[in-house]
Amino acid sequence: MPSISKRGGKVPMSPFRKLIPFADKAKAAGKHVYHLNIGQPDIETPAYALQKVRETTFKILEYSPAEGIASYRRKLADYYRKFGIEAQANEIIVTTGASEAILFAMLACLDPGDEVIVPEPFYANYNGFAQIADVHIRPITSYIDTGFALPDVEAFESVIGPRTRAILITNPSNPTGTFYSREVLEGLGSLARNYGIFLFADEVYRDFCYDGNEFFSILNIPGIEEHAILIDSISKRYSACGARVGSIVTRNQQVLGAVLRYAKLRLSPPGFGQILAEATLEMEDTYINEVRDEYRRRRDVVYGRLSRMQGVVSYRPGGAFYCFAKFPVDSAEHFCQWLLEEFEHQGATVMLSPGEGFYATPGLGVDEVRLAYVLNCHDLDAAMDCLEVALKEYPYKKQATQAATTGPAARRPAPGPAF
Amino acid sequence: MPSISKRGGKVPMSPFRKLIPFADKAKAAGKHVYHLNIGQPDIETPAYALQKVRETTFKILEYSPAEGIASYRRKLADYYRKFGIEAQANEIIVTTGASEAILFAMLACLDPGDEVIVPEPFYANYNGFAQIADVHIRPITSYIDTGFALPDVEAFESVIGPRTRAILITNPSNPTGTFYSREVLEGLGSLARNYGIFLFADEVYRDFCYDGNEFFSILNIPGIEEHAILIDSISKRYSACGARVGSIVTRNQQVLGAVLRYAKLRLSPPGFGQILAEATLEMEDTYINEVRDEYRRRRDVVYGRLSRMQGVVSYRPGGAFYCFAKFPVDSAEHFCQWLLEEFEHQGATVMLSPGEGFYATPGLGVDEVRLAYVLNCHDLDAAMDCLEVALKEYPYKKQATQAATTGPAARRPAPGPAF
Repeated sequence: MPSISKRGGKVPMSPFRKLIPFADKAKAAGKHVYHLNIGQPDIETPAYALQKVRETTFKILEYSPAEGIASYRRKLADYYRKFGIEAQANEIIVTTGASEAILFAMLACLDPGDEVIVPEPFYANYNGFAQIADVHIRPITSYIDTGFALPDVEAFESVIGPRTRAILITNPSNPTGTFYSREVLEGLGSLARNYGIFLFADEVYRDFCYDGNEFFSILNIPGIEEHAILIDSISKRYSACGARVGSIVTRNQQVLGAVLRYAKLRLSPPGFGQILAEATLEMEDTYINEVRDEYRRRRDVVYGRLSRMQGVVSYRPGGAFYCFAKFPVDSAEHFCQWLLEEFEHQGATVMLSPGEGFYATPGLGVDEVRLAYVLNCHDLDAAMDCLEVALKEYPYKKQATQAATTGPAARRPAPGPAF
Repeated sequence: MPSISKRGGKVPMSPFRKLIPFADKAKAAGKHVYHLNIGQPDIETPAYALQKVRETTFKILEYSPAEGIASYRRKLADYYRKFGIEAQANEIIVTTGASEAILFAMLACLDPGDEVIVPEPFYANYNGFAQIADVHIRPITSYIDTGFALPDVEAFESVIGPRTRAILITNPSNPTGTFYSREVLEGLGSLARNYGIFLFADEVYRDFCYDGNEFFSILNIPGIEEHAILIDSISKRYSACGARVGSIVTRNQQVLGAVLRYAKLRLSPPGFGQILAEATLEMEDTYINEVRDEYRRRRDVVYGRLSRMQGVVSYRPGGAFYCFAKFPVDSAEHFCQWLLEEFEHQGATVMLSPGEGFYATPGLGVDEVRLAYVLNCHDLDAAMDCLEVALKEYPYKKQATQAATTGPAARRPAPGPAF
C-alpha cells in the first residue's frame, strides 16, 4: 500500500479540533454546548442579498472570469473607497474566500524556504497555508497584559533575516480582537519600505471596530503602494461564510499578474457566491451598522463578565468578535476538555478554543483561551454563567505557591498525550 | 519595491492564453469568433437544480462541513454506485471544483520533488497544480496516429523512477477525447500495485462516452483499493462550471485523512454550489442522456468534417467533448493567431487551442490543435466551414518537399517571440 506524503500527515489543524469528540459526547448525553470556539456567526445573512441570488434567471451557471465578475469588482472598489482605500477595480482579484487569498499571496510573493513574520497569537490556519506554500512562519510574540498590542518596530526588526519576504497581520485581529491604529501600522509600513519586504494584512473584520476606533487600511500607508497586499472576505462582514468569496487587493502590478495566473489555474471563484457578494454592496449601511452594534454589545457582555471573574486576565478587544483570556489553570486545554467531559451547569456547558494552538512558539498560551462571541447576548450571558461556575469548581487550578508534586496539578493527567 | 516570487513569475498558463488579445481585437473589428478553444459548454444547467437553489429559504449562509454537506455526499455515493463504484459517503470529500481535488491529491500523496507520470497531451492546468505542490510531471507520450491510445504498460514502466509516487490519467481525456477501456486501466492498476504507487484518475467526463463505450472507473480495478484516487467535478456533467463543486473519492483511509486536513484549512466548499449539485442527483437520467446524445452529434459533426479536410489527421474521439487534430501547417500556434488576425469567412472565424501547450515534451504538438465542441451543431458546422476555407487559404502550409530556406516557412515570423 502506498503511503501518504510526509506533509499530508502533518497538516496543522485547528486548535479546538481535539475537543470535537468530547463536545459530540456531551451533546449526545443531553448537555447543551455553548459554542464559543468557532467563527461561524449566528447573525442572519442580509435577506436582500439572499433574495438577489434567489431571483436570478440565468440558464447556464458558467465560469465567471478568473479574476471575478467585473461589476462586482467595480462595486468592491466603491466599497473600499468608503474606507479611503484608493484601489481600482482592476487592482482587485476575487478569490474563493480569504483562505485562497492568503495562499495566493504567499505563492505570489514568497518562494519555498522564504519567511513571513506573523505576530502571535495568530489565526491558526495560516500555518497550513504556509505548509502548502512551503514557507516558514517566524512568530513575534504579543502579550495579553497589553491587550496583545502590536510589538514595536524594533522587535520586528530583530527577527528580520535574509529570507524574510513579508509581514502578515490581521486587523482587527482574529484570535485576539486587537485593533491596530494608524500610527502602529505606519511603523510597519516604514519597516516594509526600509527592508524591501511585503506587508500582508488580513482585514476581513474591518467593519467591526468599536469605541470610535477608526479603521485604517495598509493600502493607505503612504509610500508602500508596492508593498501592501490586502486580504479580504465577505464571510464575517455579511455573515455569509458559505459563499466562499474573498479578494486580494494590491497596487503592485507584478503581484496582481502572479495572483491572476494562480487564479486562472482554478478557473473561477464561485458564481452564486459572487452574485450574493455583489448584492451586499448595493445595500444601505443599516445592516452593517446594526451588526456592528450587536457585536459591540456582545463584546461588552463577554468582557464585562470576564473582568469580574476572579483570577481571569483579559482586556477590552477593540474589534472583530474574539477575545483572549488567561485563566487560573495549569492547562487551558485540559480545562476545555473538562468543561465538556465533566462539567455541567443548569444542563449546559461551554466550548472554547485552547490558546496554545494560536501560538507558534512552544509553551506559550497554555493557560489562555480564545472566546468567539458569535451567540446572542442572552446565550452569551448563560455561557458566562457556566464559565464562572466552572472556574470555581475546576479542581486543577493553578496553585503557584504549592509544590507541583503535592498540589492538585500532580493529579491531573499529563498534558499532551492524554488528550 | 519588493519583487514577486520566482514561482509567481512562472505559473504555467493555458495554451490559448496568448491568443486572447487577438480574439478580442477580431471581435472589436466586428468578426464573429466561434470559440472552440474553451471548455465552457453552451448546454443549459438543469433547470430543476437551478430552481432548487432559488427555492432555498435558509437565513444564514453558513460554512458547510469541510468535507461537504452530508446529504450530498450520500447522494453522490448513490450516483457512483450506478457506475458500479462502491464508494461510501464517508469515502467522498467534496472539493471546490476538480481543481482543488487535483491539488489536494498531489499534496496528500506526494512530497516536494516527487514525480507523477502523466500521459501527454494532458490538461494543461495540471502543470500549475504541480508547481504549487512542488512536484514534477513526468510525461509519457501518446500519439494522434493511434487516437492517443494509452501507451502500453512497458512504456510507463520505463519512466518509473525512485521519486515516482503516482500516475495521473484523465478518462475520457481532456484534451484528446480518448476513452480508456477496462483492459487498459487494469494494466495501469497492476503497475500501481507492483510499484506501490498511486493511480489518480480525473473522471469528470464519465457521463460522456460514445459508441457503446462502457465507462470503467479506476475505483473498480480489483486489488488497488489503497492506490486509486478518483477526481471528480459537476462542472461539465451538469454544465455548472460556476458552481465550483468537485470531489475526491478514495478507499485509502490515510489519504482521506490527509485530504480532510487540507479541506479543513479552507473551511468549506461553496454552499449554493453544493445545493445545486445535490439537486442534480435527484433528477432522472433524461437530462444526462440528452446531453450525451447532443455531444455525440457534435462529435460526429466535428470528426466528420475534419476527416474530409485535406491533409488533416484526426480520429473519432470516444468520449468527453474534445478532439485533437494535426494540420498541414508548420506552426499551429501561428495558424491559430492568423485565424484571428487575418482570416475571415462570411464575417466569422474560429478560435482553437494550439496543441503544443498540452505537451510537456518540448517540440511535440506544434502542428496540432485541440477543438472543444461546446457549440451547437449548426454553429459547429459554420466553424468547420471557416476552418476548411482557412486551411486552404493559409499561406504558410507545410511543404515537406520544399527547402525551408525557399518555402513560405522562411517568410513566416519565427515562432515563439513573435507571438
